Amino acid sequence: MQRTVFFISDSTGITAETIGNSILAQFEGIQFDKHRLPFVDDSHKAEAAALRIKTRYAQTGERPIVVNTMADRGLCEIVAASGALMLDVFAPFIGPLEEELGTKRSGAVNRSHGLVDFDKYEARINATNYALAHDDGVDVDYAQADLILIGVSRSGKTPTCLYMALHYGVKAANYPLTDDDLDKLELPKRLRPYKDRLFGLTIDPQRLAQIREQRRPGSRYATVQQCRWELEQADRLMRQAGISSLNTTHVSIEEIASKIFERFGIERTMF
Amino acid sequence: MQRTVFFISDSTGITAETIGNSILAQFEGIQFDKHRLPFVDDSHKAEAAALRIKTRYAQTGERPIVVNTMADRGLCEIVAASGALMLDVFAPFIGPLEEELGTKRSGAVNRSHGLVDFDKYEARINATNYALAHDDGVDVDYAQADLILIGVSRSGKTPTCLYMALHYGVKAANYPLTDDDLDKLELPKRLRPYKDRLFGLTIDPQRLAQIREQRRPGSRYATVQQCRWELEQADRLMRQAGISSLNTTHVSIEEIASKIFERFGIERTMF
Repeated sequence: MQRTVFFISDSTGITAETIGNSILAQFEGIQFDKHRLPFVDDSHKAEAAALRIKTRYAQTGERPIVVNTMADRGLCEIVAASGALMLDVFAPFIGPLEEELGTKRSGAVNRSHGLVDFDKYEARINATNYALAHDDGVDVDYAQADLILIGVSRSGKTPTCLYMALHYGVKAANYPLTDDDLDKLELPKRLRPYKDRLFGLTIDPQRLAQIREQRRPGSRYATVQQCRWELEQADRLMRQAGISSLNTTHVSIEEIASKIFERFGIERTMF
Repeated sequence: MQRTVFFISDSTGITAETIGNSILAQFEGIQFDKHRLPFVDDSHKAEAAALRIKTRYAQTGERPIVVNTMADRGLCEIVAASGALMLDVFAPFIGPLEEELGTKRSGAVNRSHGLVDFDKYEARINATNYALAHDDGVDVDYAQADLILIGVSRSGKTPTCLYMALHYGVKAANYPLTDDDLDKLELPKRLRPYKDRLFGLTIDPQRLAQIREQRRPGSRYATVQQCRWELEQADRLMRQAGISSLNTTHVSIEEIASKIFERFGIERTMF
């Protein structure tokens, strides 16, 4: 069974999509065909959206579902006239909040993903540049790092660092454990002063071999045997050094980041 | 006036934070002191959360606001006993969806940011690696690019490419226009075959000078005069070549990405 879903917004549509995906994930047996319609901020665009929804309704015979974050009531009504099931993301919360805060909402277009605060923007960009400069052990100045991820090659360090930088302005360096480190079962000297900022990523050997095989097909680097050896040694090294770690095999980048923040008591909210 | 807000979740808390920020942004005059409490998935953690909220209530004398995405009713009740204003993100939508879809929700912990689909994960990682390898004109193979951002140095190309890769699996390369390109007012040869995938980023000269000044204080590169010349030439070059562009000065990375996707008709939904 498949149902069509439209995420409609007068801005980027990120909020509509985020909450929509979370709600839909709770209905496991159903396939959803998802479409994003951002920047619907005048009646022409709302009518075009309504027509598209109506067309889909006619094609499938099933009522489309609309997850909506448009603020303007008039635009909402135009889209609702398509006959879709309208789920208005903000409506249920505005009343209770207006009462609690003793003030009316501003009512303008949702700008939560559009607003730019230069300080926050700079924090994101600086952290991203930091992550890029301190990726794969290339640069050695870890003094500025909020945290340093360690792990074997392709265990997920780089995307996690970039995610934490882009979204939270967290300066995360990463250091790939070398064969030399793994042989000696010793943390490299330049990491030792920052032991309390280290966090390890690990992964199942089969999965790691699969990822490496894509990168260097047929190489020793990509064999399950080599992956298993590296991971076992890395695990030993981290246990000996008392470094917390997380197995990333079945965990999304978002969840890895949240778990790391939890471990370090970082409560920074996202931008 | 300041009010305390807690984003509480049995998972990462990203959904609670995203919708919470969007709703709060509609109340412009009020400062919110925001806290994220992720992975609240048993009664001990719920009680610890409730205690923290209660403490804040006592300290400030103002009722805290809780934006909640925990699925378990028992855990919600424990937190609600703190006396906070509870905004339950999913509650208003589950009923109408259950009726529409003719099925009950699965009711488990929200896993929308925790689920890992290996194919999607690989698309994100491959796109991120692509963006890293095709950053700042270092690598010249643009054949695989979904799109290529062009602009002067520090106009926002790199973070935008990384964001599109990490969140949408879009392979975005970036090419920084050189003084040579800007002098000649010509697109470099290797970009010409991909003209329909090019998109320009521009920025106000004062803002660019400010960003560059951080990077290379006191340099000619960071003077408003130099920035203005580069931006004017880049603008000319793009207009002559018929390349769409966006001024990023007051626009967030999320919104830049959404606008670019709109321009190219890319409807990919986020992961």
